[in-house]
Formats: sequence, structure tokens, C-alpha cells
Amino acid sequence: MDSMDSMYDVLLQLPLFQGVSRAKISELIEKTKFHFLKYKSGEQIVSKGEECTHLKFLISGCVRSEMVNKSGKIRVSEVLCAPNVLSPNHLFGRNTNYPSDLYAVEETGIMQIDKQTFIRIMQDESIILINLLNIISRRSQKSVETFLALSSGNVKERLAFWVLCFTQRKSIDVRVICKQKDLYTFFGVQRSVFMNALNELKEDGIIDYSTREITILDREKLKAILTTDDDD
Amino acid sequence: MDSMDSMYDVLLQLPLFQGVSRAKISELIEKTKFHFLKYKSGEQIVSKGEECTHLKFLISGCVRSEMVNKSGKIRVSEVLCAPNVLSPNHLFGRNTNYPSDLYAVEETGIMQIDKQTFIRIMQDESIILINLLNIISRRSQKSVETFLALSSGNVKERLAFWVLCFTQRKSIDVRVICKQKDLYTFFGVQRSVFMNALNELKEDGIIDYSTREITILDREKLKAILTTDDDD
Repeated sequence: MDSMDSMYDVLLQLPLFQGVSRAKISELIEKTKFHFLKYKSGEQIVSKGEECTHLKFLISGCVRSEMVNKSGKIRVSEVLCAPNVLSPNHLFGRNTNYPSDLYAVEETGIMQIDKQTFIRIMQDESIILINLLNIISRRSQKSVETFLALSSGNVKERLAFWVLCFTQRKSIDVRVICKQKDLYTFFGVQRSVFMNALNELKEDGIIDYSTREITILDREKLKAILTTDDDD
Repeated sequence: MDSMDSMYDVLLQLPLFQGVSRAKISELIEKTKFHFLKYKSGEQIVSKGEECTHLKFLISGCVRSEMVNKSGKIRVSEVLCAPNVLSPNHLFGRNTNYPSDLYAVEETGIMQIDKQTFIRIMQDESIILINLLNIISRRSQKSVETFLALSSGNVKERLAFWVLCFTQRKSIDVRVICKQKDLYTFFGVQRSVFMNALNELKEDGIIDYSTREITILDREKLKAILTTDDDD
């Protein structure tokens, strides 16, 4: 009875199960095979390119996600904390391989459900279906919305646009790991222009930076650059 | 019987109904209220900001979609032809308003199903549910994939990245409508650098351009810039 209660609490925390009744969750717990996995700090959870066959829920701890571009020169990294769901938009679609490496940042618990079982759950319970559609749709709307919010296209805006496109809404400790030179070349601007933008962002408490990486201190504030800039 | 057959053909053409059996489609046709709408060439189908309450299928003709950024200086426009589905990723998610204006380019037919009915259809038939999840997931994967494919970040790559982020896989006649000056300012490069990139893309048959707009002649070729560039 006790473990049933804690299971119920875990599921209720997850955005995907929001709004589902206690009775329905009990039924799910009885009928469904949930797999629980534990990872130690630093342990790899997923390798880039690995097939996404299960929906993985982050139920305790935090996970670092790391993507690297083709040249290998630019890495984008972010941390997701429980409760959350890992790469829900890679279970379906043309590309069902994980786009990034995932590592446990601390002692981390994952609960996973295989794809077929999850499809059955969605068919059985419309709230869960709608929750997943909301989560995936939200992600697909991101790039269009950031485009609509662009105004001047100055370096700060472009950096914000670019970082927001690849990172999740609830992620923390977002890092762009890259030599400064590669980054201002990538953005096609002179060093001085790029450094001015970085310094302004740092003064506003939005980022910090070293010669090798930029840390986004506040993703929401970074977003505000795109949405509140009031030029023409 | 005849109209039943043609209805069957129409539904089978749509990516969302791929793989669904004839028997299941017959059952759907009987049980579901489909709404059919006809538009004349030039007529507006959807206004930007309008609430997305129905899933709209493009069953005949072509539709132009037009988005404009906040400053009003940059417009991105594309044409989608039947069979297709319009903004399936805006029926759910935080933002359920259409991000763009949609106009009929020629005599155009739309079939629509309201959201509640469509949810019921997905619960009833897993193939349709999986088809929708595939379509939306595919869109949400786009920005991450284009990031992974970036190598040098030269102007051609950045233009490709940028256009691919906002346009659909099967769209034709993609246009970026913008003064050249606003565009090279936006990309943060000098006029000469920008014009060189445009000229190279034009020579390769990927785009054409005038002082007021860039036309993407071949979206697939534009994509190849990101995925086949073999620098380091």
C-alpha cells in the first residue's frame, strides 16, 4: 500500500500524467510494466545515436544532455532535473535516435515504458494522449515562435535565438562550449562586436563566460531579449 | 457508393491516414462529421493569431503561408500543395493560434475535423495516432537536426539553417521577402559577403533573388548545404 502511494506520487509529478485521476493511475500501476533504473553520478544514461525505444521519465536527480555539431567545434549542453521526460520528441518521427548524450549529474532515477505499451496507455486515457501532444507540439512551435519574436537580429538576439532553439524550457545550467574565435566566426561578426554583446549579457546577469564556454545563467531572461525588445 | 469511394481516396492520400485499412476508413466516414470548405484563388483561409480549433486537411489545390517577424521587416512565405495537413503542430501545445496567414493560391479544398472528434479518432485507431505523433515529432526534431548538421557557419549555411527552421519539408516556392540591406544587417555581415553567398547559391540553381526577395528554388538542395559540406 505504501509503495503504491509513492508510485502514485511519482507519476502525478510528471507533466505527462497531469490531470489524470487517482483511480486511473491505480489502474495503470496495476496493468503496466514500469521499469526502474538507477544511475550513479557521472554514469551515462543514453549515447547519441542510440535508438529511442522507451519513453524515459526522470523521476529523481538531474541529467546533463550534450550535443555537438558536425565540425565538433561547438557543443551545447544543458541540465534537466526531475520531474521531467527525456527526449519525448524522439520516440516518434523520422529520426528515432537520441540526438545527444545523456549523463547522470547526481544519483538519478529513471522510470521507463516501452513504446508499444505507451501507445496503449494513450489510447486508453485521452488526458495522457493530450498531455504528450501538448509537450511535443510545444517543442515543434519553438523555432517558429523565436523567428516571430526576432526584431533587429543583433548579436544578442541571434545568440538568444540560437540557444533557445536547441534547449528545453525547464533546463538549467545551459552551456555553449566552444572557443570564442570559433563562435564569433560562426556568428560572422568581429571579435569586438561579439565581446560587447557578451559583456552586456553578463552585466545583465543573463550569462557568464570564459574563453572556452558561455554559461546561460537564466534561460527565461535570455528569452526576454527576444520578446520584450522594443525597437520599431 | 461513388462518393464513398472518392472520400476513401481522399483520406488515403493524406499522410495522417496512411496505413489505415479500407474497413476502418469506411467506419470513420460513417461515424465522423467531416466538414468540407472551398476557397477561390486569393481567398484567405486562416488569419495569423486565429485559434486553431480544427485539424485542416488540404485535399485539393495549394495554399500560401506567410509569416512576418516582429519588426515587420522580414517575411517568410511558402506554398503547400495537396495532399497535406495545415499546421498540425498548432492544434496542441501552449500556443494554439496559427502563426501565419494562409491564402488559397488557386481553387482550393479543405476538409476539417474538430479537435475533440480528432482526439476520439486517435484513441480509436492507433495507426492515426502514431501518424500524427510522427508528423509532429518530425517537426520538433528539425531545429536540433539542423544544428547538428552545421559545420562552418558561413553565410550560405546560416541562410540554409535559418530558412529550413521555419519552412515545411514538402513546401515549394519558399520566399524570404525583405530588403537586401535588412537581411545582411540581420545576418551581421557586409553587403559584399552576403551577395557573394547569394550569387554562389544562384549559380548552383538553389535560389534566385531580386532586390526585394530571395526565392528558394529547391528546398532539398538547400538542405544538402547543411548535410554534405565536408569541411573538417
